[in-house]
Amino acid sequence: MKVMRVPEATVSRLSIYSRFLERLDKLGVITVSSGEIAKGVGVSPAQVRKDLAYFGEFGTRGVGYNVKDLSHYILKILGLTQQWPVVLVGAGNLGTALCAYRGFKDRGFNIVGVFDNDLLKIGKRIQELEVLPIEKVPQVVAENNVRLGIIAVPQSATQEVADVLVKSGVEALLTFGPAVIHVPDNVIVRNVDLSIKLEILTFNLGFRELQPSYWLEPKV
Amino acid sequence: MKVMRVPEATVSRLSIYSRFLERLDKLGVITVSSGEIAKGVGVSPAQVRKDLAYFGEFGTRGVGYNVKDLSHYILKILGLTQQWPVVLVGAGNLGTALCAYRGFKDRGFNIVGVFDNDLLKIGKRIQELEVLPIEKVPQVVAENNVRLGIIAVPQSATQEVADVLVKSGVEALLTFGPAVIHVPDNVIVRNVDLSIKLEILTFNLGFRELQPSYWLEPKV
Repeated sequence: MKVMRVPEATVSRLSIYSRFLERLDKLGVITVSSGEIAKGVGVSPAQVRKDLAYFGEFGTRGVGYNVKDLSHYILKILGLTQQWPVVLVGAGNLGTALCAYRGFKDRGFNIVGVFDNDLLKIGKRIQELEVLPIEKVPQVVAENNVRLGIIAVPQSATQEVADVLVKSGVEALLTFGPAVIHVPDNVIVRNVDLSIKLEILTFNLGFRELQPSYWLEPKV
Repeated sequence: MKVMRVPEATVSRLSIYSRFLERLDKLGVITVSSGEIAKGVGVSPAQVRKDLAYFGEFGTRGVGYNVKDLSHYILKILGLTQQWPVVLVGAGNLGTALCAYRGFKDRGFNIVGVFDNDLLKIGKRIQELEVLPIEKVPQVVAENNVRLGIIAVPQSATQEVADVLVKSGVEALLTFGPAVIHVPDNVIVRNVDLSIKLEILTFNLGFRELQPSYWLEPKV
């Protein structure tokens, strides 16, 4: 069988193309060229074509892509033509902020359970959810067919929480901060490290002074 | 003058190599090969060499890189051989979580001012900082030579806050969520969109079922 490797950067860019296409669609735009997508999100037209080529043939030469069709197809590639129930462990400031994060709902991610082991937090309401004790994770995961989990607890508790989620059947985890966790091979883990984005800023600030010959490519 | 374009993905990977090299250095490791770095962070050895090649010649053929030297040089490229004072606007849940985010301090980012326009938040303490009214931004920026700003306010207020920061002399902004902001050309903006990471997870979950011939490359 032919095995294709899709670079993770391509998947991230598909997410960004998808947002741009949804905006165009709302504005009533019918067709778009790779050049227009490229300009809209800040990459090269060749990059757009290469990213899309992983997934088949799109568009008509000289006409471009149908906005609605391409938008839908990318959502399908990303797995976003369905709603995704998500459980969130950690009802501190980060967890509370994540519950309110509008960007999740916009893309079909619904937090269906928030958990903590802090007695002062259990029973509290965040948005429309009651914070539940961690012991309830397996039940909520099973009842809602949850496959995605977000871990927003102190670094020292990250592994323990990951173990609970994995044991409950959660298949993909998003963690915050520098903790490295160990999970079975069939579980997918991605990490948000907020300082990496700041380092992109300092790289730019530093290099534009010291060595004006180094410049970053566009944003994506 | 020769103009080199450094892909943003390369800069992000440098951040990740840097963390790995610091761990090796703490363990007392003296030299490391591109293959070992690659394995440690989950990319190909060719990618490691290509990323480093943007910035000159490193390492000795057959011997590899000196861990301490390479670690220091990458920090220098990223602008991290100095401390960076940062201002943060928004003292809600997200802002409070960011103040406590250990990953910032580890990399030399020090939040020196937290601001809000909510009278209920002004005067409160977050970590060792008192929340100040937004009117104080110019003063704190000037007194601390601040060049980096983080915006953690509701989407509708993002542009207004960006204007205040830019007017105060802040040169690089980190924003959260989907709001698109407009700033002068000399100001650098990067955005953290947390749902993009979730979409990488759903992409993986979806494709491993529907089309087992599509697989992601390693993590970075």
